[in-house]
Amino acid sequence: MRILPTVKQPTKKILDRKVGQKPGHLSVSADALPPRLFLVSFDDEYYETREFATYDELLQAFMGAPEARHWIDVRGYGNVSLLECMMKDFHIHPLQMEDVVNDYQRPKVEEEHNRLFIVSRMIAFTPQHELDDDQLSLFTGPNYVLTFQSDYEDCLDPLRERIKSGKGAIRKKPSMYLAYAMLDVVLDHYFPAMAQLGEYAEELEDCLFESPSKQLLSKILDLKREVVKIRRIIWPERDKINEILRMEENSVPHELKIYFKDMYDHAIQLIDLIDNYKETTSSLTDLYLSNVSNRMNEVMKVLTIISTIFIPLSFIVGLYGMNFSRENPKGGINPLNMPELYQPYGYVTLLGFMALVVSGMVYYFYRKGWLS
Amino acid sequence: MRILPTVKQPTKKILDRKVGQKPGHLSVSADALPPRLFLVSFDDEYYETREFATYDELLQAFMGAPEARHWIDVRGYGNVSLLECMMKDFHIHPLQMEDVVNDYQRPKVEEEHNRLFIVSRMIAFTPQHELDDDQLSLFTGPNYVLTFQSDYEDCLDPLRERIKSGKGAIRKKPSMYLAYAMLDVVLDHYFPAMAQLGEYAEELEDCLFESPSKQLLSKILDLKREVVKIRRIIWPERDKINEILRMEENSVPHELKIYFKDMYDHAIQLIDLIDNYKETTSSLTDLYLSNVSNRMNEVMKVLTIISTIFIPLSFIVGLYGMNFSRENPKGGINPLNMPELYQPYGYVTLLGFMALVVSGMVYYFYRKGWLS
Amino acid sequence: MRILPTVKQPTKKILDRKVGQKPGHLSVSADALPPRLFLVSFDDEYYETREFATYDELLQAFMGAPEARHWIDVRGYGNVSLLECMMKDFHIHPLQMEDVVNDYQRPKVEEEHNRLFIVSRMIAFTPQHELDDDQLSLFTGPNYVLTFQSDYEDCLDPLRERIKSGKGAIRKKPSMYLAYAMLDVVLDHYFPAMAQLGEYAEELEDCLFESPSKQLLSKILDLKREVVKIRRIIWPERDKINEILRMEENSVPHELKIYFKDMYDHAIQLIDLIDNYKETTSSLTDLYLSNVSNRMNEVMKVLTIISTIFIPLSFIVGLYGMNFSRENPKGGINPLNMPELYQPYGYVTLLGFMALVVSGMVYYFYRKGWLS
Amino acid sequence: MRILPTVKQPTKKILDRKVGQKPGHLSVSADALPPRLFLVSFDDEYYETREFATYDELLQAFMGAPEARHWIDVRGYGNVSLLECMMKDFHIHPLQMEDVVNDYQRPKVEEEHNRLFIVSRMIAFTPQHELDDDQLSLFTGPNYVLTFQSDYEDCLDPLRERIKSGKGAIRKKPSMYLAYAMLDVVLDHYFPAMAQLGEYAEELEDCLFESPSKQLLSKILDLKREVVKIRRIIWPERDKINEILRMEENSVPHELKIYFKDMYDHAIQLIDLIDNYKETTSSLTDLYLSNVSNRMNEVMKVLTIISTIFIPLSFIVGLYGMNFSRENPKGGINPLNMPELYQPYGYVTLLGFMALVVSGMVYYFYRKGWLS
Amino acid sequence: MRILPTVKQPTKKILDRKVGQKPGHLSVSADALPPRLFLVSFDDEYYETREFATYDELLQAFMGAPEARHWIDVRGYGNVSLLECMMKDFHIHPLQMEDVVNDYQRPKVEEEHNRLFIVSRMIAFTPQHELDDDQLSLFTGPNYVLTFQSDYEDCLDPLRERIKSGKGAIRKKPSMYLAYAMLDVVLDHYFPAMAQLGEYAEELEDCLFESPSKQLLSKILDLKREVVKIRRIIWPERDKINEILRMEENSVPHELKIYFKDMYDHAIQLIDLIDNYKETTSSLTDLYLSNVSNRMNEVMKVLTIISTIFIPLSFIVGLYGMNFSRENPKGGINPLNMPELYQPYGYVTLLGFMALVVSGMVYYFYRKGWLS
Repeated sequence: MRILPTVKQPTKKILDRKVGQKPGHLSVSADALPPRLFLVSFDDEYYETREFATYDELLQAFMGAPEARHWIDVRGYGNVSLLECMMKDFHIHPLQMEDVVNDYQRPKVEEEHNRLFIVSRMIAFTPQHELDDDQLSLFTGPNYVLTFQSDYEDCLDPLRERIKSGKGAIRKKPSMYLAYAMLDVVLDHYFPAMAQLGEYAEELEDCLFESPSKQLLSKILDLKREVVKIRRIIWPERDKINEILRMEENSVPHELKIYFKDMYDHAIQLIDLIDNYKETTSSLTDLYLSNVSNRMNEVMKVLTIISTIFIPLSFIVGLYGMNFSRENPKGGINPLNMPELYQPYGYVTLLGFMALVVSGMVYYFYRKGWLS
Repeated sequence: MRILPTVKQPTKKILDRKVGQKPGHLSVSADALPPRLFLVSFDDEYYETREFATYDELLQAFMGAPEARHWIDVRGYGNVSLLECMMKDFHIHPLQMEDVVNDYQRPKVEEEHNRLFIVSRMIAFTPQHELDDDQLSLFTGPNYVLTFQSDYEDCLDPLRERIKSGKGAIRKKPSMYLAYAMLDVVLDHYFPAMAQLGEYAEELEDCLFESPSKQLLSKILDLKREVVKIRRIIWPERDKINEILRMEENSVPHELKIYFKDMYDHAIQLIDLIDNYKETTSSLTDLYLSNVSNRMNEVMKVLTIISTIFIPLSFIVGLYGMNFSRENPKGGINPLNMPELYQPYGYVTLLGFMALVVSGMVYYFYRKGWLS
Repeated sequence: MRILPTVKQPTKKILDRKVGQKPGHLSVSADALPPRLFLVSFDDEYYETREFATYDELLQAFMGAPEARHWIDVRGYGNVSLLECMMKDFHIHPLQMEDVVNDYQRPKVEEEHNRLFIVSRMIAFTPQHELDDDQLSLFTGPNYVLTFQSDYEDCLDPLRERIKSGKGAIRKKPSMYLAYAMLDVVLDHYFPAMAQLGEYAEELEDCLFESPSKQLLSKILDLKREVVKIRRIIWPERDKINEILRMEENSVPHELKIYFKDMYDHAIQLIDLIDNYKETTSSLTDLYLSNVSNRMNEVMKVLTIISTIFIPLSFIVGLYGMNFSRENPKGGINPLNMPELYQPYGYVTLLGFMALVVSGMVYYFYRKGWLS
Repeated sequence: MRILPTVKQPTKKILDRKVGQKPGHLSVSADALPPRLFLVSFDDEYYETREFATYDELLQAFMGAPEARHWIDVRGYGNVSLLECMMKDFHIHPLQMEDVVNDYQRPKVEEEHNRLFIVSRMIAFTPQHELDDDQLSLFTGPNYVLTFQSDYEDCLDPLRERIKSGKGAIRKKPSMYLAYAMLDVVLDHYFPAMAQLGEYAEELEDCLFESPSKQLLSKILDLKREVVKIRRIIWPERDKINEILRMEENSVPHELKIYFKDMYDHAIQLIDLIDNYKETTSSLTDLYLSNVSNRMNEVMKVLTIISTIFIPLSFIVGLYGMNFSRENPKGGINPLNMPELYQPYGYVTLLGFMALVVSGMVYYFYRKGWLS
Repeated sequence: MRILPTVKQPTKKILDRKVGQKPGHLSVSADALPPRLFLVSFDDEYYETREFATYDELLQAFMGAPEARHWIDVRGYGNVSLLECMMKDFHIHPLQMEDVVNDYQRPKVEEEHNRLFIVSRMIAFTPQHELDDDQLSLFTGPNYVLTFQSDYEDCLDPLRERIKSGKGAIRKKPSMYLAYAMLDVVLDHYFPAMAQLGEYAEELEDCLFESPSKQLLSKILDLKREVVKIRRIIWPERDKINEILRMEENSVPHELKIYFKDMYDHAIQLIDLIDNYKETTSSLTDLYLSNVSNRMNEVMKVLTIISTIFIPLSFIVGLYGMNFSRENPKGGINPLNMPELYQPYGYVTLLGFMALVVSGMVYYFYRKGWLS
């Protein structure tokens, strides 16, 4: 049987919050990866992608091309002082940087001075075919998009390819369009995960009809849990896009609204799908429980048929196993004590009678429909 | 038993979206039909319907009669360059054209510069009496309505007939009325589908009372799934009409609002019907489960009656099958060892006693109401 | 057992809509009654009620008394040309007239140019004590109220009586008050129907405690369905009144608002009642299912008690029915083979032992509480 | 066992409404009590409480002290002409007076010309420890509060005491504060009723663990019904207070808003409590059903243990009760026919074997955990 | 097994409200602790924390440093006259002080003249590892925060530490920030409680798979109740923060909004967690019930297998225990009466036949899958 693709949720991380910490404190865990710094710079004609060893070099390159659009792409948080420098240079609020580092935030968007801070959850299959749930934190600026993520690997490569090849509008539109394109690619990755869930559900249903084992219910409930988890991510995702749709011209230019509307439609499709799965799992539970009770019924019928046929027969043969004495104590024969035993055709007649009883019973059960 | 009319939903297509594609990309599948181009032109007095071999001819005919109203009717998407020409000529946004081609969109309406883009789902019976779920994509313009659909066949023939015969207001009203008429015909086709579902539900209910087989629950759950599917299409349909109702005079003239209000009433009737079916299926599930447990009860009663009658009797006849010796080892008769066996009327008395026991039991069960 | 009063819903009619018909088409069925035309004219001092043979006479009478208030009361739709004349004379929109004729509309109100078109459902007992669900379609005008209904009989007689006798404010207030009074009388008729449902539910509950037969669940589910049906009529009824309450002075004079507020309270009371019934039916279902499982439990207990007592006893008597030979093949007596059978008090001792076993068992079951 | 405190709801009265009565008609039932008229007059320094034999005396006393605040307290409706006089003198709308007399209204507030008409339900224990559900109808005026109720007894005595003793702000604040104080006292009386319900629920839970009798489920469902009833009263109560909170300065002075806010908090606490009880009852239902099925399980286990042990033993002893003949018909001994019966240690060996079988079975059941 | 951390809710206190008390009355119970008065004063550079023996000293210290910010920290309510003095000095409304003393209020915020009154529930583990549910009542002022709580111990020590060490923005921001910091610390303490609940739920789930005892369901329902309780506290907590977020600049400075937004995100995370637990408990209930019915099924199967194998065998051996006489009463042998008993290989043949029957049965059960 296929393995259920499971989203590892950061519940543990959420529950392990240190109580009473000052807001905006950057508590980076010891095993966080050291940051790698990438800069993708482009305009209509020009394209360049570079990795920098130090933040200063990156800043210089970024500052040196104010007329281009830039994607500053930071992977790994393992350097608090770097993060603090960036907070100052890019005017990031400490609470927002805390949200970046505590990478278990719900999808959300915050707006201030026409700049957006957007949190998305990247649900994508790892090369090991497991589901990874990473956070993409995104800040928009007049001519740049600044992203943070915890791993070196992500699911944005198709986008990088598109920028490089200059396909589509991405090189011509304002930097907000780049942010849109990222969110869109992230959302696109939900569909294969959904497809996997769907196939798993179908396999469960097939199992249910073939060999309804005891473990099945627990598998159905696992699937349900997974569905609920993804539902909990997609709904705020939808709300986030809806909030972006209702923002003013200055924050999100009107010409881009239609793109976010399109993305909103995708989110709704995802919600439709996930609701479908939710109902499927509850149908499966119903079917499973009904199967269990059907099998109980069947067991009971076998027991009842066997008992009902043989218990009366056992009585009859017991009857003629009794030892009533034919000898009259006063001498002579006692003709009333079990005379059947002394008939020449007694045994044969009894066998025939019992055959009749059995036939009658079988016919009765047949009529009741218990034999099918 | 009748076959459940099943709406084939485009879940597969939705899940097979290519990840990371640029927005507005027209990915037409290889088996898409080559487009056929129809133009229906009419005004109060004049009516003409033509099919064109090339798009240029159609455009010429359309441009040549600016004072008439037109229905440009494109069936099949198998020609991307044609679609791109139309995008340019009719000012269609790439994302909207993408929605046209990816024909698994939810019902929706989009408005820009007083032009509407409306997506509807055509649920109609095929000649093979199966349910077809196609998409009708519709753009309104000042003097035309432009529609796209994937198949050559559709459910709009009654409307074509009405335009031809000049019945009703259709030849006199603005082109927005033509759009309304299309949506109305599409919505009308939901009713026969609902009627079918209703009959199927009634048949299931009859079955439930006649011979509640094991497969019934799975059929009930299938029906439920079908009901949920259609519900998922009708609700956004309702929202769509509601959105049209709240649009401004420039987009939807006030005099047409009453027509959309009428259509809204139809959508609500459909929702009432589908909610009815939803409750029916849940009643059916309850009835089915109660039937199963009633039958279990009946089986148990038969077992109990038979066992309760014969087990004590078997004990009695077993009792008199014991071999306690009457002969006193010291010689003489042992009068305490099973003297009943030596009574002249012992056997007959026992038979009578057993008949009494049976009668008592039967009376007890009768009083309990187990024999009915 | 009392019969459940059932509302015959026009589901069939809704589902039989002809697909693709032009909006506003009056499709009157062949068995529609020919219209009868009544005119009730009155003011503070004056009152007259007349039936007219032709529409022209009615129109003349109506036109001839412009200072009075009028109730034009049309019963039966079986004359399309008459309906078309009235549409023209009273400025009725074709779609509204279609709603009048297709008399399966949900309760609703439409307003245009300060004139209201109101649809109500008349739920009332027929003389045969069945529930009738007719449609009352009502148009208000400056000095008249125009009503349509399909049958010659209706539930408005108490109102006619009130107009005739001049009781209450009805002869002094504007014609909108007449419309209110009609709606109020119609709503009043829901209460007896609710009372019937309530009595039926109580009877079902009594049955459940007396003799829970198999058909009961299906009756409970029928009741539930009936409750849901009426709920579907009352909720839009409430919404309709609420909409009237929020209308402007010109459509509904402020002094009449308090009357509609009162009616709104009645609608809420009806909703409270129907919600009560809904919960009652779900309680009944719970009770029924618990009853079924209690009875199963009881059956099982009887079986278990009988089996548990007699199966060990049967073993014991079987034991002493064995034929182990006392005769040593080498001659003499084999003292180890069933010596109990040869004890002088063997049989009596065994009987005593068995009595002891039975007593022990009975005591055990008594302690378990299985004997109560 | 304690008796469930039951709110007698006026469902009967609601359902017995006479159909088609004119709105505002005062239909006082024959057994209504004759009104008693009380007047409480007070200001900062002055306090007087009087009962009047006639309405004219009361009116005179009331008119004679225009600078004081008054509580006109009418108990009993059995005098229609008196009610009609008051309608005229206090400008009460006929529909509101009808609501006063038909004392089964939901809690509500109506405002006109800055005067409030408030309906509350007084749920209080009678001296016989039953729950009484009376209606308190309250009209506010510039310097008075006018209340109506059907019984001579009510739950406002603590308030009368407070006015008399001059405790709190009641003698200094405007008359609207007096109205608030009444509503507050009425709401306070819900808490003891809730406490009773809570204790009843706890007792039910204890019963469930001790001796889960058949009647328990029906008691749990009764409790649920009671909880639902009170919920139906408290929710509109909350809405009523909320509506008062949102009224304008002229109707409810701003300085009093904080008092109503406090009352609103109490209503929310009541709703929290009642929701608690609702969940408790559904937990109880779950526990009851699980108990029933646990007991069934136990019964089944006893049956199975006994049957499984003795049925094989019975077979064995039956086996050696067979009468296969050792005598060869051709003379001599037939050594193959049941030679065990002729072994000297045959019987003892068999007993040992059977003991072994029993031990094995018991061990098996012990391992399965069926014996605990 | 771990003990479920239980929130002791003040239901008893709520239900014991004295009926009819005047609003704003301070009814302090006899066992209330005598107040201890603390003052924490600080600004950018300066920090001092003192406990005062009398209120006058505290007031003097507070008044003497108008340019600093202060946290007036009152623990224990056992002194009504002190509370009344504070009401006067700090302009606290009697109803609000009543809410402070009746410390079972839902989380809420009230605003008047740009001053906030905030009620929070402190859910924190006591040193005995039990969950304590205390109320923190908080008043904000221009340069102070005034808090009340019933116990000497609380969960704000981490905050005191932060003020003392001057970490973070707390010494530089306005006093409203201090209030925020308190609320934030209080909310932070919910997370460990949630973690405990989560571990308890996991342990329950493990138990369910190992040894599903009878008490388990009751434990699951206890957990559910606990989850519902905390849910009832967190939801109004969320609403409270939301209300603060929507307040005007004068009450909550704009620069602090982002902090409350952060807190709001935490509240949403808590709600997500608690909803997770809610679904977990309902899954557990499903699993438990399915386990119970699976075990019943297993019991039934054992019974059926044993019965079905041995009942027919018992019949057969009973058959050959019959005593049909071979002696013809007329002399000679009666060859038809049980000739099998006289065959030389009769017994062996029968044993073989019975072995065959058993094998057949076992094979049948194996095919049915009942033996696994």
